[in-house]
Amino acid sequence: MSSGRGEFAFIATLAKQLANVPQSLGLADDAAVLDLGDGRQLVIAADMVQAGVHTLADATPAQIASKALRTNLSDLAAMGAEPAFYLSTIAWPGAPMPELTDALVNQLAKDQAEFGIALIGGDTISTSGPMSISITVLGWAKGPILRRIGAQIGDDVWVSGSIGDGYLGLLAAQGGLEFMPADARDYLLRRYEYPDPRLALGAALNGVAHCGLDVSDGLFADAAHLAAQNDAAVQIDLEAIPLSPAAQLYVAHESDRQVALLRLARSGDDYELLFCAAKEERPAIAALAAKLNLDITRIGRVSDGEGVVARTDNGNLQTMHDVGFTHF
Amino acid sequence: MSSGRGEFAFIATLAKQLANVPQSLGLADDAAVLDLGDGRQLVIAADMVQAGVHTLADATPAQIASKALRTNLSDLAAMGAEPAFYLSTIAWPGAPMPELTDALVNQLAKDQAEFGIALIGGDTISTSGPMSISITVLGWAKGPILRRIGAQIGDDVWVSGSIGDGYLGLLAAQGGLEFMPADARDYLLRRYEYPDPRLALGAALNGVAHCGLDVSDGLFADAAHLAAQNDAAVQIDLEAIPLSPAAQLYVAHESDRQVALLRLARSGDDYELLFCAAKEERPAIAALAAKLNLDITRIGRVSDGEGVVARTDNGNLQTMHDVGFTHF
Repeated sequence: MSSGRGEFAFIATLAKQLANVPQSLGLADDAAVLDLGDGRQLVIAADMVQAGVHTLADATPAQIASKALRTNLSDLAAMGAEPAFYLSTIAWPGAPMPELTDALVNQLAKDQAEFGIALIGGDTISTSGPMSISITVLGWAKGPILRRIGAQIGDDVWVSGSIGDGYLGLLAAQGGLEFMPADARDYLLRRYEYPDPRLALGAALNGVAHCGLDVSDGLFADAAHLAAQNDAAVQIDLEAIPLSPAAQLYVAHESDRQVALLRLARSGDDYELLFCAAKEERPAIAALAAKLNLDITRIGRVSDGEGVVARTDNGNLQTMHDVGFTHF
Repeated sequence: MSSGRGEFAFIATLAKQLANVPQSLGLADDAAVLDLGDGRQLVIAADMVQAGVHTLADATPAQIASKALRTNLSDLAAMGAEPAFYLSTIAWPGAPMPELTDALVNQLAKDQAEFGIALIGGDTISTSGPMSISITVLGWAKGPILRRIGAQIGDDVWVSGSIGDGYLGLLAAQGGLEFMPADARDYLLRRYEYPDPRLALGAALNGVAHCGLDVSDGLFADAAHLAAQNDAAVQIDLEAIPLSPAAQLYVAHESDRQVALLRLARSGDDYELLFCAAKEERPAIAALAAKLNLDITRIGRVSDGEGVVARTDNGNLQTMHDVGFTHF
């Protein structure tokens, strides 16, 4: 989730030396896939969330747990899988206090009901460090899995929801964005703290999209993953990137609009779905957006070349050497 | 793995409010079980290991990872499942250094080859705290699963291998046991650092044992789990507890033999299998021990009553109110 160059090399080594079975998908996708041989596939992902890194430093255990669960579910959404179960291992600073554990259980119970899942295992340990929660989610898929690979030159590139809200929510929590109405700051903070995994969209994209992934590292960084996996360039029209009203207000408030847009495209924690589809699917995708009552925005296309290429409002194309995070 | 009274209450709440599906087995067993409906069952466990808590404070990342993997595999052994895959999430202090990540990958590659498993997913984050590694293991089982429940009054109680070595290994690492030959200390340390999950034994116990679990919290603590799950007492003959030559030397060196035996029975980190079986299975179990070249020792029996009852060398029976760890 967070990252750096050292981690990139580490994961590449893990993939090559330890993950040499087809079920791992080379650790290059959002989850592993066990083909059960009867048409069903079990899709499995595991991610860890740490207080102060992936959440605010003063986040409650309930908030940390919910974010861990939701970001893991986003990985299942990216594969088009329907979630079923999860396991959680929790490193709890000191001894668990009943009022905190009760709040955590209540939050997870709400999330379980919302996403149709149940806890089936895990572990709790006491830690001298910050709270961290590792979650493994399991879901079911039928038919072909939505993967990162499969883009065709000329495909449209789409993204769900809005981009940059997670980053702006973090800014708001850190005391920034004071010029905004309180409701807008609250909206952004909620997007940062309780991301909405796009499960219904992911499941509906099987047979529609050629490939996809969730935007966790950031729009550009995840577009760079798609570009690398598909040996192609992903062109993104900066002005087409969907922004919430609050994010539009942020951009309007900044002195340089393009710099602000680039900043949002390089920030993480969106948990939207980014996918490629043939032009012929435009009506189907419009119908899907209406059915799900979810914005799905065409932001660019797949072209020959490599990396992420941003198209500015004067029509210039510019390869993005800095895409933000560099997580595998 | 480690624990306290607060954690016990927390896990009970998790089980009741969040794990209310049959696949969780009420969080009361060593792993969850997904019945795939075609005779196969997928067995899944997740545990977290933290440097300085479950390992020595100066353990290398390779040692921490191997212990995390092996203790998780012990949970699969306890259910009689054959391991297949694992996912790991690693909280790495600071940035991963190549010489440390290479050693970790090499150790896991050795372990993977030994246990017939492969990495299929996970995550790495950077932490300001100590290193922690959470592992989720997945394995296959056919037919009835070895569970904690199922003991019959009058059953023999058996344990594999030897008890107390893990605890003594920790003592040795902390500078204790100086009276022992270096080879004995090395043996004990290795038992602490690289536990051997009893996978072949667990798989062979299906159809032989009525119930079982792995001895991770300690012989008495895990016997107490069996007693509680089966509404029965587990009687353990102190003098029958199997000890390695090094542990026998430790007991001989202590001034009070019984106190020393009780200490070993209350210590954790053995990762042996403790199980109950009908008297009629004694020949089968003897044959199994010979086949696996592994000591399997009859240490007591299941009786009416509750809790763990120790039988001392003068024949007295004494209920153990202090069983050591109190992990669920």
